[in-house]
Amino acid sequence: MSKVRVNCFTLSLDGYGAGSDQDEQNPLGKYGAELHQWFRPTRTFKGMIGDPSEGTTGLDDDFARKGTENLGAWILGRNMFGPIRGTWPDEAWRGWWGDSPPYHVPVFVLTHHARRPLEMEGGTTFYFITDGIERALELAKEAAGARDVRIGGGVQTIRQYLSARAIDEMHVAVSPVLLGSGEHLFQNLDLRALGYRVASQVAGEKATHVSFDRVDA
Amino acid sequence: MSKVRVNCFTLSLDGYGAGSDQDEQNPLGKYGAELHQWFRPTRTFKGMIGDPSEGTTGLDDDFARKGTENLGAWILGRNMFGPIRGTWPDEAWRGWWGDSPPYHVPVFVLTHHARRPLEMEGGTTFYFITDGIERALELAKEAAGARDVRIGGGVQTIRQYLSARAIDEMHVAVSPVLLGSGEHLFQNLDLRALGYRVASQVAGEKATHVSFDRVDA
Repeated sequence: MSKVRVNCFTLSLDGYGAGSDQDEQNPLGKYGAELHQWFRPTRTFKGMIGDPSEGTTGLDDDFARKGTENLGAWILGRNMFGPIRGTWPDEAWRGWWGDSPPYHVPVFVLTHHARRPLEMEGGTTFYFITDGIERALELAKEAAGARDVRIGGGVQTIRQYLSARAIDEMHVAVSPVLLGSGEHLFQNLDLRALGYRVASQVAGEKATHVSFDRVDA
Repeated sequence: MSKVRVNCFTLSLDGYGAGSDQDEQNPLGKYGAELHQWFRPTRTFKGMIGDPSEGTTGLDDDFARKGTENLGAWILGRNMFGPIRGTWPDEAWRGWWGDSPPYHVPVFVLTHHARRPLEMEGGTTFYFITDGIERALELAKEAAGARDVRIGGGVQTIRQYLSARAIDEMHVAVSPVLLGSGEHLFQNLDLRALGYRVASQVAGEKATHVSFDRVDA
């Protein structure tokens, strides 16, 4: 059965999924690039970006790879798509990823500002959804069919879907860094009351991998 | 050289060092007892409480044991000493630990309410300090001599000493549980700006052990 998943969402030890002061040069905010030290060396990531060097295998790579499997659609918050806030000045911004983004399926971008769908190379089409997280999830599930929907982030998007109890499984990687400030995933979000629990916690090479699931009451 | 240390301070995955609604039956608040699932089975803990059963060895026990070594004094927030708030009604409350607490050295308890020192069996004496965290640390260092001072907790006490950059080393155990609410160790505390960094992150049998140190600018 089709699931709604979070995978490979990376937190600092102090709980931040992104640093402060995000901009085009620092998509993950101040110090945010340090979060993905576990992910960048993996064979999975190198495959995604077409890096011919070999890449690491092991637990970190296993989690990275599982995150890519059986996906039929993605949902992203607008800041995951780009640094532009407010109305789109034009259609020039086409995402952080160049002409061929690593999604290869429909990607639903949550925004308050309408924009035409954007078809990229390699099977990725960005759809800009202005009528809320529930509608975006409906469309994503429809697009995904029997495959899963992955909620890519950022923090606010994941928090909204967790609050709605819409996420079935969540894998979080905890990187051994401190960001000190930024967007906190858990702050004032009572995951336990929402029915979530820790299914497992295991150590990868460069991050601790925590898997959550939801117990339906 | 003598150090100021935090050891074995346990956080939930969502960052809480204690749950909400602390009282005499639940010293660590709602669900807080789940935090110490890694600690209770260890040989070190069983030795502390005089439990004759064997106890586990391994990484969890190594961290537990290191936490007990070379200590000359402790500092505790008042809630770590007991559930009483406000003025002491009398001297009947003598701590959570019975007649022979597991400290065996002077313990400085932070409180706004004066009380005579309390000498217990086995070398533990509780001193009640009403003139602030700096004075408590001064007295604790004096008492500890060449040995270290351990800041036992709770969350607010550790946050105050971290904010003052008074802690040299901190070991935190992250338990694979969600508390959902309670006292958060990192919230609005910019450890990175204070000079702290992650020295190591390793997986024990039932918790992830994170060690922080302070880089002096």
